[in-house]
Amino acid sequence: MAAPRILSGIKPTGRPHLGNYFGMMRPGIEWQDRGDAFYFIADYHAFTTVHQPELLREYSRGVALDFLACGLDPARAVLFRQSDVPEVTELAWLLTCLTPMPMLENCHAYKDHQSKGKVPSHGLFAYPVLMAADILLYDSNIVPVGRDQKQHVEVTRDLAEKANRMFGEIFVVPTPSIVQTTATVIGLDGQKMSKSYGNTIDIFEEEKALRKKVMGIVTDSAAVEDSKDPATSSIVALYRLFAPESDVALMEDQFRAGGIGYGEFKKRLFVAIWETFAPFRQKRAELAADPAILDGILANGAERARAVALPVIERVRRATGLR
Amino acid sequence: MAAPRILSGIKPTGRPHLGNYFGMMRPGIEWQDRGDAFYFIADYHAFTTVHQPELLREYSRGVALDFLACGLDPARAVLFRQSDVPEVTELAWLLTCLTPMPMLENCHAYKDHQSKGKVPSHGLFAYPVLMAADILLYDSNIVPVGRDQKQHVEVTRDLAEKANRMFGEIFVVPTPSIVQTTATVIGLDGQKMSKSYGNTIDIFEEEKALRKKVMGIVTDSAAVEDSKDPATSSIVALYRLFAPESDVALMEDQFRAGGIGYGEFKKRLFVAIWETFAPFRQKRAELAADPAILDGILANGAERARAVALPVIERVRRATGLR
Repeated sequence: MAAPRILSGIKPTGRPHLGNYFGMMRPGIEWQDRGDAFYFIADYHAFTTVHQPELLREYSRGVALDFLACGLDPARAVLFRQSDVPEVTELAWLLTCLTPMPMLENCHAYKDHQSKGKVPSHGLFAYPVLMAADILLYDSNIVPVGRDQKQHVEVTRDLAEKANRMFGEIFVVPTPSIVQTTATVIGLDGQKMSKSYGNTIDIFEEEKALRKKVMGIVTDSAAVEDSKDPATSSIVALYRLFAPESDVALMEDQFRAGGIGYGEFKKRLFVAIWETFAPFRQKRAELAADPAILDGILANGAERARAVALPVIERVRRATGLR
Repeated sequence: MAAPRILSGIKPTGRPHLGNYFGMMRPGIEWQDRGDAFYFIADYHAFTTVHQPELLREYSRGVALDFLACGLDPARAVLFRQSDVPEVTELAWLLTCLTPMPMLENCHAYKDHQSKGKVPSHGLFAYPVLMAADILLYDSNIVPVGRDQKQHVEVTRDLAEKANRMFGEIFVVPTPSIVQTTATVIGLDGQKMSKSYGNTIDIFEEEKALRKKVMGIVTDSAAVEDSKDPATSSIVALYRLFAPESDVALMEDQFRAGGIGYGEFKKRLFVAIWETFAPFRQKRAELAADPAILDGILANGAERARAVALPVIERVRRATGLR
């Protein structure tokens, strides 16, 4: 039996922070060891919100560099730009014709947006259909998603099963695989790290900026000599993501013992973060120095992705009567 | 100055009847004398309702044969299948991201459908965006439409102007040209001819079927010798579409004079219809006899359509930051 095809999309809407790295990038990169992994840079999806051409370009290349720097291996996994296989939009149109309006009206992302009183774009409303096309165009078996995206994989399954009943077995029905986030990453202010809270630490932060951010982590007003609670400290929570267990245990003991100020612990955290990402930073700098390397990787990825997608879209065209 | 580009779509959802011919096909074919005419067979649009592959195939080729038989000249006009330029769905996605939901919620076709208590598909809801892409992908200057489609050209203009403000002058803003229907074509039962009323006469009807339909036109119960009112007669109304003015005047006189029964007038109408379409019928039979002819025309049309569309989509990709 062939290895299962695992598909995952990366939306290029900004620079990745620690929350993205531990919640999505690192587990995502691990999937390349478990099957035939396809990663696409979801530039059509990003266009629902990013309407500055320079930014879209920068983010699309940037996110590819980020993943490659963090360990995505283009010799094994297929890394490609969504828009290099525009057939996905054709499939999205065909699926749109099979999608009852209530199926989209009930999707959480749209309902949430609406409940905030904003005027949604049709792109936001329609994106679960494009996501279904993303998945079905590559005969994907497994789609690792966060809990918030599970509903969209259900939409995909419903559409695939409906199309298979109407036109014969044209689609592989995918299985969602819910990613268990091992750690909620805490932000600078003690809340969950999230771009919308403005409390993020980017993984490829400059040294000076990183130091400044880490030193600015919000703490209580305990004095140097006071005993401190490691269980409620953002410093310890973040340190745990980077330091070996013994170092974490030492820091916890020193918190409780008193005699060391938060500034000292923050410096230790800064070093741990900086050193963890050192090899990735170096790799990223190397890749970024020669744009032809990324061009080559994306061209190769596009070719391998098209080799899978074109027979699928041709199969769909024939089954539906377009050909 | 180059001739204006005139774009028109033909939805392959059935066999054409006299109402289609006089309301849309004949005026449409005349546009080829007024500019650079592009006619596309809207198979992606047809897929919103036609989910039987055999039918979609038959209708798509059939509508091309109909137009060619009725005088569309593929040496001048460009006749092509919408799905032979799938870039239109890519453009539709990009426009979708610029389309506020209320713009589509306010479109008549969708509101009408909803008000009838039916569950609409997302295809019905989204089709004005695909129509906008159809128009903008070919830098169309003029879009001849029926009154019911004017709103959709307004949507297209709004989207083109919005995109031009955001990304520079990437789209030609089209002008709708409202087709003045010269005659409302009356159906077999005296109502407007329409497939939904089941009162149609197809233009390529078999002789026996045509005769039966014409002889079945609903009349009042006037006897042979009675004077009859030509102004309220479906027979005269239809005859006017086919016979020279002098023949129509004669029939009107004979109506008023009495002494001739409806059956006789119906026979005269049958002959007029049959003979009007005789050369088209012959031409259609010739074309249908050798599928390679139509294949060649559509391949040539696709090539000429792609020559216009590809620079446009490339311009859009660069301006939006996808490239």
